[in-house]
Amino acid sequence: MFKADILGETLKDGIEALTIIVDEARVHLSKDGLYARNADPSYVAMVQFELSAKAFENYETDDEVVTLDLKKMQGILELANRTDIIRIVVDENRMALSFGDLKYTIALLSPYSIKKEPKVPKVESAAHVVITGKEFRWAVKAAGKVSDNIALGCTDTDFFMEALGDADTMRLELSKDQLIDVSRADGKADEIRSLFSLEFLLEMSKAVGKASEVSLDMGKNIPLKVGFDFADGNGAVSYLLAPRIEQE
Amino acid sequence: MFKADILGETLKDGIEALTIIVDEARVHLSKDGLYARNADPSYVAMVQFELSAKAFENYETDDEVVTLDLKKMQGILELANRTDIIRIVVDENRMALSFGDLKYTIALLSPYSIKKEPKVPKVESAAHVVITGKEFRWAVKAAGKVSDNIALGCTDTDFFMEALGDADTMRLELSKDQLIDVSRADGKADEIRSLFSLEFLLEMSKAVGKASEVSLDMGKNIPLKVGFDFADGNGAVSYLLAPRIEQE
Amino acid sequence: MFKADILGETLKDGIEALTIIVDEARVHLSKDGLYARNADPSYVAMVQFELSAKAFENYETDDEVVTLDLKKMQGILELANRTDIIRIVVDENRMALSFGDLKYTIALLSPYSIKKEPKVPKVESAAHVVITGKEFRWAVKAAGKVSDNIALGCTDTDFFMEALGDADTMRLELSKDQLIDVSRADGKADEIRSLFSLEFLLEMSKAVGKASEVSLDMGKNIPLKVGFDFADGNGAVSYLLAPRIEQE
Repeated sequence: MFKADILGETLKDGIEALTIIVDEARVHLSKDGLYARNADPSYVAMVQFELSAKAFENYETDDEVVTLDLKKMQGILELANRTDIIRIVVDENRMALSFGDLKYTIALLSPYSIKKEPKVPKVESAAHVVITGKEFRWAVKAAGKVSDNIALGCTDTDFFMEALGDADTMRLELSKDQLIDVSRADGKADEIRSLFSLEFLLEMSKAVGKASEVSLDMGKNIPLKVGFDFADGNGAVSYLLAPRIEQE
Repeated sequence: MFKADILGETLKDGIEALTIIVDEARVHLSKDGLYARNADPSYVAMVQFELSAKAFENYETDDEVVTLDLKKMQGILELANRTDIIRIVVDENRMALSFGDLKYTIALLSPYSIKKEPKVPKVESAAHVVITGKEFRWAVKAAGKVSDNIALGCTDTDFFMEALGDADTMRLELSKDQLIDVSRADGKADEIRSLFSLEFLLEMSKAVGKASEVSLDMGKNIPLKVGFDFADGNGAVSYLLAPRIEQE
Repeated sequence: MFKADILGETLKDGIEALTIIVDEARVHLSKDGLYARNADPSYVAMVQFELSAKAFENYETDDEVVTLDLKKMQGILELANRTDIIRIVVDENRMALSFGDLKYTIALLSPYSIKKEPKVPKVESAAHVVITGKEFRWAVKAAGKVSDNIALGCTDTDFFMEALGDADTMRLELSKDQLIDVSRADGKADEIRSLFSLEFLLEMSKAVGKASEVSLDMGKNIPLKVGFDFADGNGAVSYLLAPRIEQE
């Protein structure tokens, strides 16, 4: 049994962050809060999602695992305002969502209908960059004008995004004073970079667009970690995105 | 001959109310005003439409019947402001529409090009509910998240809309104090309900969306009557919608 | 070599005016400014485009001719604000566009990839009409409701647009006091008119929509010249549109 009240805004933003990667998700409910870990069908991208019990108005649960149809929930929540309180009740194989004068009941999915949870790979990032969600979103959009791939990289003082198309290029460069933070975990100052699929970055940039701070952990041809908080710091999302092979 | 001046708003809203059901309509013009009665091609829904001569700035007519291409009129009226005065002149087989510096002349349709007017069935409604157009529109949209059918019903104190999908359900319940009115014509208090096509209700809800009051006359597996006024009470629209058979 | 700084607004509006007719254009750069003369693939419409060096913040060039992918430039400039200063540097076969923290480099096109410049025909117009860009745009849109062709014409005191469909007609008439100017170059007062493709007029009306004054030079079955200024009078665009044959 799970019974909780949550602000529309928190539930909408949380579900959006997950649907960037998966349409259906296994979610673990425990006394302290909930978490989910899901990979996209191609295993190129992964999301880790945490939401503390403190993010809820009320929160009661027996420890359990539920499998949710996120796309259907998202459709229903289009009718809720960001300021509505949403009541969620999970009982046996059904979930009730109530807000205003409306009550929806939807079926939970079979736990066997979706893939096993992915293992989270250990990634030794060489650099840590923090920028605003708005700037990240804008830069990814700018790269899309010339290429389907986008390189992210930095030195110890500058961060850049670069897109190399067949004949055209785009480069965005932000120096230390234009960034919230740039620092090297490996203590070096040389230029590091990795290449990524624009498609996934575009999706992620939609979810992070509202975040005041987005952290980017990166290195040389290693996965990129894109992290941000929501729900006044009571929720945390991090995406891992596998690099593409860059042709010299 | 028909010659009249009318506010853009009244003409636009009136034509929209008709186009929910038909693209072309037979309209009866007489000294007191005009009326139309048209069924959709499948005979599932019907519209009765009245507009008093008082809704016009000027109004002159010999008694006559014209057949109008409503969709073409709607397209032309997109260019008129709601505050424009539209001059309509019908002469022989042509209609002139003038506003601002523009003058359109369009052909009337042959009266033989469209179906005969439907007979309006006698319906003995068991209950009468009045809600705002906005709430009606919202509820119909909410039902669409889970099903193509929507049940409307009431007791003597509560009105509800219910949608039953394959695995999911939606229920909206409004009690007496949330409604403008709920009353039983049959003097009973039991729950009555009928099932309807979401598609038609969605269309109707667009036309009634601006009305401050929408009346719903309903019963057990009988047609629903959706009524509302426009043009400051000088115009009246009522839709009749046949019920679907509900599977137990 | 070409190196210039220009206001985003001026560059966006200039490129839009050209893309009404062509996706790729040959542009002549000289000390005084730049000009282009391009015909659409069907040779029905032609654009003459001039932008003075005074419209630029900075402007340096050796005399040269470049062939530009306007559609690609337009896509990139969607990311620039109208108040941004855009730096353009052309060097050998590449053009760099920089604004904000972004830098794009795109390939110039081969001069052999596009058609030769058209000769501008001598047209002896019989009348000269000046109206606002907004009114021109609105009138062309209004004509589109009934026909794919639109006649433009005037006497010595009135300007009109007329669309004749299979069964329907539209006529917009503006008298001297509703126009900025109407005058006859041929000294006559009879009604002259020519018929044009709605499609091209619609496109042109988008580009002129913001201009406070649009000049229309016309006659009896001769090309229409649509002219307007931009960039505070430092830029000038004129379109020539071939007439259609009107059936009596």
